[in-house]
Amino acid sequence: MPLKIGVVDTAFSRVNLGSAAVDELKRGASVSVERVTVPGLKDLPVASKRLVEERGCALVVALGMVGPKPVDKVSAQVASTALQTAQLMTNTHILEVFIHEDEARDGGELAWLAERRAREHARNAVRMLTDPEEMVRRAGTGQREGFADVGSLVASL
Amino acid sequence: MPLKIGVVDTAFSRVNLGSAAVDELKRGASVSVERVTVPGLKDLPVASKRLVEERGCALVVALGMVGPKPVDKVSAQVASTALQTAQLMTNTHILEVFIHEDEARDGGELAWLAERRAREHARNAVRMLTDPEEMVRRAGTGQREGFADVGSLVASL
Amino acid sequence: MPLKIGVVDTAFSRVNLGSAAVDELKRGASVSVERVTVPGLKDLPVASKRLVEERGCALVVALGMVGPKPVDKVSAQVASTALQTAQLMTNTHILEVFIHEDEARDGGELAWLAERRAREHARNAVRMLTDPEEMVRRAGTGQREGFADVGSLVASL
Amino acid sequence: MPLKIGVVDTAFSRVNLGSAAVDELKRGASVSVERVTVPGLKDLPVASKRLVEERGCALVVALGMVGPKPVDKVSAQVASTALQTAQLMTNTHILEVFIHEDEARDGGELAWLAERRAREHARNAVRMLTDPEEMVRRAGTGQREGFADVGSLVASL
Amino acid sequence: MPLKIGVVDTAFSRVNLGSAAVDELKRGASVSVERVTVPGLKDLPVASKRLVEERGCALVVALGMVGPKPVDKVSAQVASTALQTAQLMTNTHILEVFIHEDEARDGGELAWLAERRAREHARNAVRMLTDPEEMVRRAGTGQREGFADVGSLVASL
Repeated sequence: MPLKIGVVDTAFSRVNLGSAAVDELKRGASVSVERVTVPGLKDLPVASKRLVEERGCALVVALGMVGPKPVDKVSAQVASTALQTAQLMTNTHILEVFIHEDEARDGGELAWLAERRAREHARNAVRMLTDPEEMVRRAGTGQREGFADVGSLVASL
Repeated sequence: MPLKIGVVDTAFSRVNLGSAAVDELKRGASVSVERVTVPGLKDLPVASKRLVEERGCALVVALGMVGPKPVDKVSAQVASTALQTAQLMTNTHILEVFIHEDEARDGGELAWLAERRAREHARNAVRMLTDPEEMVRRAGTGQREGFADVGSLVASL
Repeated sequence: MPLKIGVVDTAFSRVNLGSAAVDELKRGASVSVERVTVPGLKDLPVASKRLVEERGCALVVALGMVGPKPVDKVSAQVASTALQTAQLMTNTHILEVFIHEDEARDGGELAWLAERRAREHARNAVRMLTDPEEMVRRAGTGQREGFADVGSLVASL
Repeated sequence: MPLKIGVVDTAFSRVNLGSAAVDELKRGASVSVERVTVPGLKDLPVASKRLVEERGCALVVALGMVGPKPVDKVSAQVASTALQTAQLMTNTHILEVFIHEDEARDGGELAWLAERRAREHARNAVRMLTDPEEMVRRAGTGQREGFADVGSLVASL
Repeated sequence: MPLKIGVVDTAFSRVNLGSAAVDELKRGASVSVERVTVPGLKDLPVASKRLVEERGCALVVALGMVGPKPVDKVSAQVASTALQTAQLMTNTHILEVFIHEDEARDGGELAWLAERRAREHARNAVRMLTDPEEMVRRAGTGQREGFADVGSLVASL
């Protein structure tokens, strides 16, 4: 039986993050995907928990776009906190993939960043489930999802 | 047996959000509604949880108006966090429908926005329960409840 | 058997909020009251939960005064968050009645506001337990506890 | 069997808060004390919960010093939130005794304040367990731990 | 059977914190170590909880580097809050070892600080599990992990 991974995204987002993640998950790995879409960020946590408990997912990728206003930032923090609780209640990783609208200079770059980040987190998902030793080899290497990696530092003192 | 959806709103709000949501829920869909009203935002979470656990609702729409002062913003965040916990404890969606008084230019626009947002979230509730495929088709389409939708972005880089 | 309502207040407060609430609860309604006093705001949540679970209260009114410093505001938020969790763990309403010292111009007005808010929330408590239909009639009517009500808005657009 | 009270403090603190609390608890009351020390503020909550659940404490006094930097303030809020959750999970009071370094003008006053606050909270602990009626008599009297009490207000309007 | 201690770190970090902690844990004490690496800060809590519940660790050291942007600070607070919850759910200490990029003047000092802090917390872990009396002797001594200790204060008033 292949690994089953959940993907949940939002109608609020201006980029189809869920489709990018599903496409990336299906490359290479023998993975079965369960996908749902919810209205916005705050609907992601319970949807993610249900993918684990009711549809048997071994890991969930939860994707959303965060607006630029203070109220949007608060929403992201509230959703993020609940994604943590959902993980602790299920002993299952739920990878939070949030793209903030103010991370990019314009809509075109935002869409590029969003798709790239979704795909890199999808690869993290597969790596975590299938190759934990590779994860340990990546420890401290300054990985970034979306923009370029920043690499390791060397101590000097 | 028709779907049972809960609606909870507040006496603090300056618009009858609950009646707008109930009216919208009853259009079209064969839906049974359980409605309660509580004093303010912070009374919504436990009331929502009780609608699920004690009155059998398959989803709850929780509606409130948020005042303009910093203390009101904190109340909204506290209530929002607890609405998340209530969802995780019940594995049931509780749609948070908050209207901030400072989103509108004046009382007239605020009332218009509030009613429109309440109705759009009521439609989300029915859609989530009856047509999950339609939800996936809305992924990444930049939906907004209340003000106009903003649409999708195209990558450029 | 009469309704049993819990009242918990603090030694930190500069107004005897608990006595005001108890006095108001005993007017009219046939209510039995359990009262405890704790040192400060952060001691209210567990005391409230114990009033529900160990002394059989059907609802609790938790009253406290919030100092004007940033550290006091954080305390209020922490206590408020825990009052939410206590409600969700017991499926019971705990009405949070906080008076912020900086809401009033001077000590005299603060004491007036505090007593009035305590009494109005006590009436909310009785109304919620004995007359849920009356609560629904108050939906969207702009009720405020302490200062004057602000009333409903009419849409214009 | 005497009352058993837990005391937990930190190696981070610049004052031996635990010893002050233990000394005060042993004056007068017939109290048995369980004491542990942890590295910092964020280690207090689970240590407090274990004192209740694994060593039978009827109440815990959790003491810590909070540094002056923004990151220290966030640590205090995180620890404080978890101390609330620990209380709700055990139905047991855990008195939070935090001293912020920026509350005092210099190190000498800070040490004086810290010791005094620790001792006053230790007296609160005994009072709560042995004399709840005395606690109710203190309602609304403006008690402060450490600095001078501020007293009650009289309404004027 | 030797003590089993968990170590979890991140690929986001620019220093291999996990290796530093493991190396320090293995000096002196007879300790068995379980190590995992996750993508970022928000993946630490559930990974830590699983090390306790699924792999039998008596304590976990959770290490991460925090970026300099506001969004990074929020991530740290969210992760920190969840590390608290994980501890309360398992009655097990999880030592949070976070290094903020803006604590150091440059990358070289950051790497030096990070390694030193990881090692000092590893020593705390062993001390807490094997020598609780030594922990009490350290109460109020102003210990700091990474930078120099600050020592005790003497009261003057």
